[in-house]
Amino acid sequence: MIQYVLSTPVQAPSNAAYAAARAHSDGQAKPLGALGDLETLAAWVAACQGQCPPVQLEDVRVIVFAGDHGVAQDGVSAYPTEITPAMVYGIAGGHAGVSALAAANDVRVSIYDLGVAVDFPDLPAEISRFKVRQSSGAIHLTDALTREEVEQALAAGDQIAAEQIADGAQLLISGDLGIGNTTIAAALIAASLGVPAAAVTGRGTGIDEGTLAHKTALIEAAIARAGDRIADPTERLAALGAADFAAAVGFITGAARRGVPVLLDGVIAVSEALVAEDLAPGTKAWLQAGHRSTEPGQALALDRLGLKPLVDFSMRLGEGSGAVLAVPMVRSAVAALNGIAQLSDLT
Amino acid sequence: MIQYVLSTPVQAPSNAAYAAARAHSDGQAKPLGALGDLETLAAWVAACQGQCPPVQLEDVRVIVFAGDHGVAQDGVSAYPTEITPAMVYGIAGGHAGVSALAAANDVRVSIYDLGVAVDFPDLPAEISRFKVRQSSGAIHLTDALTREEVEQALAAGDQIAAEQIADGAQLLISGDLGIGNTTIAAALIAASLGVPAAAVTGRGTGIDEGTLAHKTALIEAAIARAGDRIADPTERLAALGAADFAAAVGFITGAARRGVPVLLDGVIAVSEALVAEDLAPGTKAWLQAGHRSTEPGQALALDRLGLKPLVDFSMRLGEGSGAVLAVPMVRSAVAALNGIAQLSDLT
Repeated sequence: MIQYVLSTPVQAPSNAAYAAARAHSDGQAKPLGALGDLETLAAWVAACQGQCPPVQLEDVRVIVFAGDHGVAQDGVSAYPTEITPAMVYGIAGGHAGVSALAAANDVRVSIYDLGVAVDFPDLPAEISRFKVRQSSGAIHLTDALTREEVEQALAAGDQIAAEQIADGAQLLISGDLGIGNTTIAAALIAASLGVPAAAVTGRGTGIDEGTLAHKTALIEAAIARAGDRIADPTERLAALGAADFAAAVGFITGAARRGVPVLLDGVIAVSEALVAEDLAPGTKAWLQAGHRSTEPGQALALDRLGLKPLVDFSMRLGEGSGAVLAVPMVRSAVAALNGIAQLSDLT
Repeated sequence: MIQYVLSTPVQAPSNAAYAAARAHSDGQAKPLGALGDLETLAAWVAACQGQCPPVQLEDVRVIVFAGDHGVAQDGVSAYPTEITPAMVYGIAGGHAGVSALAAANDVRVSIYDLGVAVDFPDLPAEISRFKVRQSSGAIHLTDALTREEVEQALAAGDQIAAEQIADGAQLLISGDLGIGNTTIAAALIAASLGVPAAAVTGRGTGIDEGTLAHKTALIEAAIARAGDRIADPTERLAALGAADFAAAVGFITGAARRGVPVLLDGVIAVSEALVAEDLAPGTKAWLQAGHRSTEPGQALALDRLGLKPLVDFSMRLGEGSGAVLAVPMVRSAVAALNGIAQLSDLT
């Protein structure tokens, strides 16, 4: 499996289908370009599907990757790590934020525990099928994962993508869950972009000024500790990542390798997308940014990926929730491309 | 009917329901405020309904108000006025832009001809039930409507709102249709805000620099011709408006007076909302801005109304299409308010 993850190249979406979609939009009974970004979005869907008209994205799924992060023991979050398992139960029970938004927008939610600090014997075994370890190393002091753990998590994410796609998924979303994960995301973004921690570190779920300074210093220390190894995306995940992050990277590249588009959520997903693009160049062509989060690192990462968020609601919940909110936009784009008459048919 | 339109005051949405919704959001199992603008939006729906939790907005309707505008005979548009009836047939036939977007988002579309330059004997009579006249006066030369025609159109819009609400509509959208209507909108916005035509005049469906200068000059001339009468909203509609605009104003105030919220589309709807607020103070509390259009006047008008658009897709189609795109956002807000567990229920 890991051989597939690390070596199968990502193909480009179809230029021909993209061009056909643009031409179809241009021929519709409306002013040229009057649907704005919706026309670009529809053409992207056509390109990913390699066909115009594209089929509607009926089957959209969020996979939530859950994990704890050793660095969270060092006071970087507004919440204690005991919140992570409570959030797992919330999603498993269907009463979390992403559950409500997904139900309203006809999106399916699954959750996998890749590295939560406790186990879940009382939840369905499927949730723990890909668990790599409990928590991860505190990145300012030690590596988050061994290289073998990274590869195991990458392979898990790839397999999850393969299974979801085989089961009919047409658009995938990676959701995140785990206290401390905006610290990991900031470290990965700073390392991926080569910018200082201060440029990418934000308040996560709502920390104060002093905690923000502490969080920034820890990230700076983690990047300094990792040194030159961060040039390699697998080593970057080992030094600064976590099992949930590595699995999501494998999931994103796995979708791209199989020609299935991905809608990114907030800062966590975007940090993973940066690593995914380094691991499997060309992945970014299969991505859209679902929403603009309030984390400063997300904007920098989106600029690098060349992505513009579809919605901007100042959300910072995680779980894939912002991307779920954007799903109707993508479906609307397809509906407009497929549903508006051609001018030539009317005259 | 016109007595009701002009004299029944607009009540304020419920502060108690708004506060209850905010408290409910704050008590949910998520970081405080993590759903950002979605929480504010949900509280607005609760306030409009006067209850928390609010019921989901299953029944959402776009009413497209169609009309021609005498000023369009003077070269202000990229399209000839013959396009207006073609667009009416497009919506009546269900293959227009708003038709496709509405179908994808479970929104109903109706169309009324208030002032198209031709009649539609081959379409259902309902479409013409409220027709005020054919076209309107060229506003740089003469009044658009008589005062009686304005009152007839206001009453028509009010009656349409009353009928839709009686039939179950929970959220209303006013759509626009008619060549030349961004000229009328710019004139109404400039007159309502007291700003120069150049500040609010845009390219509509895509005019060139020379046509833009001509369009701006015509609007300036129209406002100068109208003089002090524009201080009165009914006179403003007579001097610078059109039957489709006046009907939409009656529709918006009619919804607000009956306690039903309205989602505004682009520059046309926002120009109507400014007049509606002057005609029936308090109306704006019942409004949300569906999308940011590419027309410069829309941003100024939204600032005055205190509204922030829900989506920004650089759309300029009209027909209510941008507001329809935002409908899933409003439903998502309600779903999140109603679907996420309270922290107190989990602990």
